[in-house]
Amino acid sequence: MVMECAKDGLIEAVVPFGGSAVPIQNPNRHILGGKGLGLQEMGSIGIAVPPGFTLTTPLCQIYQQTNDLPTELWEEVKKAIARLENDMGKKFGDATNPLLLSCRSGAAKSMPGMMDTVLNIGLNDETVKGLASATGNPRFAYDSFRRLLDMFGDVVLGIPHEDFEEKHAALKKKYDAQTDLELNADHLMELCQAYYKVYEDKGLEFPQDPFEQIQKCVRAVFGSWNSSRAIKYRKLNNITSLLGTATNVQTMVFGNLGETSGTGVAFSRDPGTGEAKLKGEYLINAQGEDVVAGIRTPEPISTMEKNLPEAYKEFIQNVNALERHFKDMQDVEFTVQEGKLWMLQCRSGKRTGHAAIKIAVDLVKEGICSREEALLNVEPDHVKQVLHPTFPQKVLDSPQYKDNIIAVGLQGGPGAAVGKLCFHTEEAEERSSEDLILVRENTSPEDVGGMWASKGILTSRGGVTSHAAVVARSWGKPCVCGCSDLEIDAQNNIMTIKSTGEVLKANELISINGSTGEVIRCAIPTESPTVDGDFGTLLSWADEIEDSCKVMTNADSGPDSAKAVELGAKGIGLTRTEHMFFDHARLPHVRAWILHGVGIEKLCEFQRSDFRDIFRAMGGKPVTVRLLDPPLHEFTPPLTSVCESMAKELGYDDVHQLKIDIEKMHEENPMLGLRGCRLGICRPELTTMQVEAIMNAAADIIDVDPSANPFPRIMIPLVGNVREFEHQALLVKSTAEKVKKERNKNLRYEIGTMIEVPSAALQSEKIAATKDPETGDFLCKFFSFGTNDLTQMTLGISRDDAGEFIPKYNELGIFKKDPFKTIDADGVGWLLRLSAAKGRSVNPSLSLSVCGEHGGDAASIEFFDDVGLDYVSCSPFRVPVARLASAQAAL
Amino acid sequence: MVMECAKDGLIEAVVPFGGSAVPIQNPNRHILGGKGLGLQEMGSIGIAVPPGFTLTTPLCQIYQQTNDLPTELWEEVKKAIARLENDMGKKFGDATNPLLLSCRSGAAKSMPGMMDTVLNIGLNDETVKGLASATGNPRFAYDSFRRLLDMFGDVVLGIPHEDFEEKHAALKKKYDAQTDLELNADHLMELCQAYYKVYEDKGLEFPQDPFEQIQKCVRAVFGSWNSSRAIKYRKLNNITSLLGTATNVQTMVFGNLGETSGTGVAFSRDPGTGEAKLKGEYLINAQGEDVVAGIRTPEPISTMEKNLPEAYKEFIQNVNALERHFKDMQDVEFTVQEGKLWMLQCRSGKRTGHAAIKIAVDLVKEGICSREEALLNVEPDHVKQVLHPTFPQKVLDSPQYKDNIIAVGLQGGPGAAVGKLCFHTEEAEERSSEDLILVRENTSPEDVGGMWASKGILTSRGGVTSHAAVVARSWGKPCVCGCSDLEIDAQNNIMTIKSTGEVLKANELISINGSTGEVIRCAIPTESPTVDGDFGTLLSWADEIEDSCKVMTNADSGPDSAKAVELGAKGIGLTRTEHMFFDHARLPHVRAWILHGVGIEKLCEFQRSDFRDIFRAMGGKPVTVRLLDPPLHEFTPPLTSVCESMAKELGYDDVHQLKIDIEKMHEENPMLGLRGCRLGICRPELTTMQVEAIMNAAADIIDVDPSANPFPRIMIPLVGNVREFEHQALLVKSTAEKVKKERNKNLRYEIGTMIEVPSAALQSEKIAATKDPETGDFLCKFFSFGTNDLTQMTLGISRDDAGEFIPKYNELGIFKKDPFKTIDADGVGWLLRLSAAKGRSVNPSLSLSVCGEHGGDAASIEFFDDVGLDYVSCSPFRVPVARLASAQAAL
Ligand SMILES: [Mg+2]
Ligand SMILES: [Mg+2]
Repeated sequence: MVMECAKDGLIEAVVPFGGSAVPIQNPNRHILGGKGLGLQEMGSIGIAVPPGFTLTTPLCQIYQQTNDLPTELWEEVKKAIARLENDMGKKFGDATNPLLLSCRSGAAKSMPGMMDTVLNIGLNDETVKGLASATGNPRFAYDSFRRLLDMFGDVVLGIPHEDFEEKHAALKKKYDAQTDLELNADHLMELCQAYYKVYEDKGLEFPQDPFEQIQKCVRAVFGSWNSSRAIKYRKLNNITSLLGTATNVQTMVFGNLGETSGTGVAFSRDPGTGEAKLKGEYLINAQGEDVVAGIRTPEPISTMEKNLPEAYKEFIQNVNALERHFKDMQDVEFTVQEGKLWMLQCRSGKRTGHAAIKIAVDLVKEGICSREEALLNVEPDHVKQVLHPTFPQKVLDSPQYKDNIIAVGLQGGPGAAVGKLCFHTEEAEERSSEDLILVRENTSPEDVGGMWASKGILTSRGGVTSHAAVVARSWGKPCVCGCSDLEIDAQNNIMTIKSTGEVLKANELISINGSTGEVIRCAIPTESPTVDGDFGTLLSWADEIEDSCKVMTNADSGPDSAKAVELGAKGIGLTRTEHMFFDHARLPHVRAWILHGVGIEKLCEFQRSDFRDIFRAMGGKPVTVRLLDPPLHEFTPPLTSVCESMAKELGYDDVHQLKIDIEKMHEENPMLGLRGCRLGICRPELTTMQVEAIMNAAADIIDVDPSANPFPRIMIPLVGNVREFEHQALLVKSTAEKVKKERNKNLRYEIGTMIEVPSAALQSEKIAATKDPETGDFLCKFFSFGTNDLTQMTLGISRDDAGEFIPKYNELGIFKKDPFKTIDADGVGWLLRLSAAKGRSVNPSLSLSVCGEHGGDAASIEFFDDVGLDYVSCSPFRVPVARLASAQAAL
Repeated sequence: MVMECAKDGLIEAVVPFGGSAVPIQNPNRHILGGKGLGLQEMGSIGIAVPPGFTLTTPLCQIYQQTNDLPTELWEEVKKAIARLENDMGKKFGDATNPLLLSCRSGAAKSMPGMMDTVLNIGLNDETVKGLASATGNPRFAYDSFRRLLDMFGDVVLGIPHEDFEEKHAALKKKYDAQTDLELNADHLMELCQAYYKVYEDKGLEFPQDPFEQIQKCVRAVFGSWNSSRAIKYRKLNNITSLLGTATNVQTMVFGNLGETSGTGVAFSRDPGTGEAKLKGEYLINAQGEDVVAGIRTPEPISTMEKNLPEAYKEFIQNVNALERHFKDMQDVEFTVQEGKLWMLQCRSGKRTGHAAIKIAVDLVKEGICSREEALLNVEPDHVKQVLHPTFPQKVLDSPQYKDNIIAVGLQGGPGAAVGKLCFHTEEAEERSSEDLILVRENTSPEDVGGMWASKGILTSRGGVTSHAAVVARSWGKPCVCGCSDLEIDAQNNIMTIKSTGEVLKANELISINGSTGEVIRCAIPTESPTVDGDFGTLLSWADEIEDSCKVMTNADSGPDSAKAVELGAKGIGLTRTEHMFFDHARLPHVRAWILHGVGIEKLCEFQRSDFRDIFRAMGGKPVTVRLLDPPLHEFTPPLTSVCESMAKELGYDDVHQLKIDIEKMHEENPMLGLRGCRLGICRPELTTMQVEAIMNAAADIIDVDPSANPFPRIMIPLVGNVREFEHQALLVKSTAEKVKKERNKNLRYEIGTMIEVPSAALQSEKIAATKDPETGDFLCKFFSFGTNDLTQMTLGISRDDAGEFIPKYNELGIFKKDPFKTIDADGVGWLLRLSAAKGRSVNPSLSLSVCGEHGGDAASIEFFDDVGLDYVSCSPFRVPVARLASAQAAL
């Protein structure tokens, strides 16, 4: 059966893998899903996987549209099952030796724990007896059956898992069993009857027909794509434009058939540190969900060499083959059934930022992949993570740290987090603007919202592959998991350290160290990392990619500038001069000038000294200085703070007049008021002062070091039409030339403008064409897109006020992405592209760039690279992310 | 000599007219100026004009660029003067019978009194004697000479005219002369010497060489183009893109050669009323400036039939010929020299709005021009004028009016004005936001700023062709001139009614009736006019022009709607529902809903009743209702007004919480905050309520009158992307369909959107493509461009705050036109055009329109017509202007 698929042409509905299946050429992740793809690829390189088949993603779309699946599909499924029966020498529904199947979802992107699984399909009142006799293990048979009853009830019929758990717990109590293992076959048979009772109480029925079972499971798995928790997960993780999930039906293999069986999960390298060392856990005589659910505490993978030597050897070979095949670190699941190794799943492993960087560099060193391939294997979020704060070594050695450690758990996700204790997911979501540490016994898919909103996560149960740890690492969030010394009483908003009896209440400040598992009962200062070692190597590879956007920085001071250079910035793309105005000591002078127009010389002195610091830090690199931008009333004192002495200081006889003058400056919509170049046009002395400060600072630097070669670029903000630009540019030029003459130095400088008002974008060819009337050269050497303001004006949204409706918009899907984080390509991006084309059509050597927060956003950088911008500019700590993203965009 | 001219190709520098000159084909106003064109045209239809030549406008550009004129020009000028000498039988500079010349500016658009003139060029110490003997009139010769000395000194050398006037006054005093006429030849000879002394005192010289005189005069006239008062006039009158002025050199003829000479000005029809009756004034034995300056009080033109019968007969023939030639009412100047009539100038006459309309309709009736030509002869400003308030007849008959008339002057400009007395031009300019009546003895070009800023003008001197009256009429401002009973003491800010001794102080409220000349000492209520008679005829012709934009109106109530229909609106293009919310009685309910979400049913009732009124007034015409648009905090009480009882009324226990709730709604930039469709998305019950009110109101109307066919169009404001539109449109649709079902009526309605956010304009094809999922039809039936908000966002200017920098921007020429009055074609207009094209590309039958203030602006309507909009919508009183402008745009 083939289906028509818009992008991919004709697609087979059913794709077999494993056993006698012929591996398909160029398997497509979007059609097979990640799990289906891995199974295909493993088959193709000769790795044993339990045979099965993939029901491809277009079926999921059909299911969404029609709420059903095509009738002819089931004939195909029957044929596919017949192949499995052949390969395995068992019959599905056979009363003597039944073939059992699993049914699992698997989308193109991993959505851990979000989707549904049913195991042991094919068991019923008859076949369970056959399984018991065929395996000689009735206990196993009834344990498998009760698991099927539980999962089928939960996944297909929506019976809460807890209803089954209740019966389970009651039975254990009845027979005084501490663990599941103490329940024997009879007990489990009784449990099956109790589970049937759960169905009965709900008026529901468990189908005895194995094929009806598989049909219902397949439908349920496709339907789970649109469960609310799956939708929420995709939204949080910005997963869009997937076709849907695939469904994999696969022969069951069992890790719980005794001491020569087992099941486990492993990473080919350490996902926390990147060390080239297998890292995993397994359990003898267990099913896979026992590992993931964190119910039994698993053994480290290394001990498997001793316990299951043959299987271990083959496993190591498999893992190495997979790494070479996929050129990346692998996350695998496996089962050993009576000594025979079966690989169940492989995929690129989630990893911390540190690990991602180390693995990328190591894989190149080991000759497994090229530099370009390695760069593409590191995500911008990984780089963001390693730029997350850590506790500095000095602090780690300090008594403040050591003496306040109250508990130690597992290393769920590296990094340092400090915040207030919070015991409830919903509360964490609501208080997302605060720094919180979410504390839970363990987490489940329902908790992702609160986890996302917290600075760090602390759990008392579950290993390093538990839900909390996997999700935390994928987000780069510090996590301490399995901290069993904690007793959490969420209802009363307290937690107790069992060993000491210490009690901590909600909102107490704690620190967690995800790299060590330590929990510290106070706020520990954190440190930002530097760019060296593997990180430096990787970023240097990134910088070598041809035709990628350069990365500059937004910095307003000498120290910021120095930090940015250290992190690899090629220059300053935006210095906001207003930040220099807010200094406490300077504010009275700023205010005096604003209110009376006096004392601007004083401001010039301040700015000149600041610019000297910046030029010194930047050497000969370009320093793009934006002339004063915000409305002047931002600098006036709040009315409530106005007092007699302040009035006097500002040259007023009485408070009353000062208040009147301040009130007069109030604006209805300050974002669109008297600011930007409008200031310099209405009060030209401001522009003159700032240019004098910039140019004199450059000259001062050369006075001290004649070899210095400072490079100011003077940027005019909020230009809306060509006449505004011309007015200010000519004033900048004449002032700069005057200083050059006065200082008798051939200082370099450039003049350019921000493009941040829609009308400027629409008329960019005029702005770019402005000529210096004296030399005939272009006056405007660069455009820098101010995407913050451009977004506000193009979308008509004041960012300050958007909080009232953006959450609703996100909920309704009106914004696919936050337009203030990732450039709105259809509107704002369209304008930007138009402006760039218009500007370059007039002056092909016009420099084009972006300053504003989008300059540090990977998805936006991809867009900017496509437009052909020369550089992006972002805050110092985003420089490394931008360097990587820019290389990736160019690759 | 020819010059290269960008638009017009090769242009002759010197173009002769009159006498032996061969009239040129298709004379070009831009090259010859208005005066030069008139002289050419008069020559071509055989009307006698004093021969002369025009120095064309490209010379003015050369003069501006080089500050000089080409040398070869002067050879051409010499040749041109030689022709005049031949034609007139006199020699320029001849000591016995000298030819005298005038030199006058004349641009393509009339700029009355703005530009310079020098008469009697060619006189010097020798030729004046020759003139004296040739005419036998030494008094005339020396009077002419002293006038030349005065004008040359003023225009060419910048000696203040007052310096000469001082000498003049002193001489009259010395010889005890009451009037100029009492000065004899000897006195005037002495005056010439006194004038020479004025030159001497300044270290300046009067050139004796006649050719040097003409050269300097020509230069001065071209230079006067960039005098500050000329620049200011052009700015106030929005005169742009002229090449410059032409200069006309012309043989002098004299109206002051005795009782068979005279000079005058006339309109071919009454410029105040439009009556088909020659209207003018003349003076026997006088020069032209005596008439215009209002120094001597002239005689009505009708008496000329008796005093200068031959000349009068020819004059009447000329005027009729000119009217037929130019197909318009003419404003002419003439001189009779010793019985011989010379026409000096003709042009389309400035007129009041009432006159323009009557003349246009009459000219069609008289077969002089077509309806289309007549429509083009009426300016949108004329229509605006007749929509200016007048005093209603009832009031004119009332004692309040009659008993308070304190003086009667001449009818300078019709219409009624009420305002505070103001005696100073500069003050009037500064207080332009207030309603002021400017009171002056007379006005001069320096006063135009203050005249513009005032509601009306009152002068104590000067006739109906005085500067004050001419300018006032051209602007449609009420003016009472020549009110000689007033004694104005500007220094002390008072005026006295001489006959009664009444004293009025600055800022007292008065009314003036420009249609009667009456001045009333109180504020008289005014009335808005209606569309009937000639006005109605003209507008009906306008409506008949094919392919012109329809005109709809912005109206929020039944009475407004009725008024708009009366003024010719074809429907409502914008009903702002928020205006219904501000009603005093409703506000508590509005607030209760905003703050607590309760009682929306009450609001629904209010709105339903309002909509019924509107539907009733509009019959079956479309009624476009915009869903609620402003931020909700606009409806909350000001914090200062919050009190205990208000809190109780709004359901609060204490004032404090109410204040907190109000403060929480504060927005930084409300224009870009939670408003427009964002309201309906966050609080969908609002959209539901409004649609229910609209649809139920429509059903109510039909219940009363089953033949009624109300036509609501529901408009969604502030849409930024297609998903916002879709969300609201589907909600509107489902609600409307629900009401249709409930009321069991097949109510018509349409859904559409405003395009006022740049991003919506950029993605219009997506919005236009939105389909109704049930019917597959387009959901969006119309776009209405909200050019107010679109301008604010595209230019990044908050209109509320622009006052702080717009004056500076105007001064610097950064805005050529106020973008909030006339659409900014380069930016906002570009977006609008793009959006229109995108919308129509998807749905060719998409209705396109404009609501917002640009919809009533003639220049903008021309743009909208070009884009191909279906209709414009403007306030009721602008509907007639828009009807005319729309017809003109389509012609
Ligand atoms: Mg900005
Ligand atoms: Mg609007």
